[in-house]
Amino acid sequence: MKHLFSLLTLLMLAVTAAAEAPYRHVVFFKFKDSASTEQVQAIEQDFVALARKVETVKGFEWGTNVSPEGLNDGFTHCFLVTFADKAGLEVYLPHPAHGEFVSKLKPLLDKVCVVDYVAR
Amino acid sequence: MKHLFSLLTLLMLAVTAAAEAPYRHVVFFKFKDSASTEQVQAIEQDFVALARKVETVKGFEWGTNVSPEGLNDGFTHCFLVTFADKAGLEVYLPHPAHGEFVSKLKPLLDKVCVVDYVAR
Repeated sequence: MKHLFSLLTLLMLAVTAAAEAPYRHVVFFKFKDSASTEQVQAIEQDFVALARKVETVKGFEWGTNVSPEGLNDGFTHCFLVTFADKAGLEVYLPHPAHGEFVSKLKPLLDKVCVVDYVAR
Repeated sequence: MKHLFSLLTLLMLAVTAAAEAPYRHVVFFKFKDSASTEQVQAIEQDFVALARKVETVKGFEWGTNVSPEGLNDGFTHCFLVTFADKAGLEVYLPHPAHGEFVSKLKPLLDKVCVVDYVAR
């Protein structure tokens, strides 16, 4: 019984630790040269709106590149989407609102790079 | 006088807004195939130590790629370094500890991508 209690305590600690480590979805965009300023701004606002539509999105921020290092490989935008866990992303990716966003984005996009990580 | 007061109020609001928007430094790494697991782990820990050494670093987290999308272009690591503002980065980049870290990193690195943004 004592061992079972210790085991349950350890399991609870593990679950708590996992719950505290957010799942980050980091997205870099480079738009086509042919994309107009208005089209790019519309995508920025659409991404903001998308994040509000999907309830598993727990945090969202974005900005345009201001790095002085010149190591951005042409990428001009970063979007940081936070989920509680991978299950949150798995709701987001197939969500109809995400599909609509990607359909509008694709014709304007030169390239994308996505890295997800569980924050340590 | 009233106009001066209004102007000062607006300036204060602008400064406050800027102070609340953190400066994010997002770094993706892809290591060379020849880099051993031990060498990669040493770099991970060195980056953690570097963040502790530079006092303008206000936040730091990292993780390895777990995205199911396959859009990571070979990048396996993301480091998210937060500064209060661009001046914080400008202390970090030329810091001797940063120089030492980069010297150790470079022989092991295949490629890097860096995007900085002021969070909106």
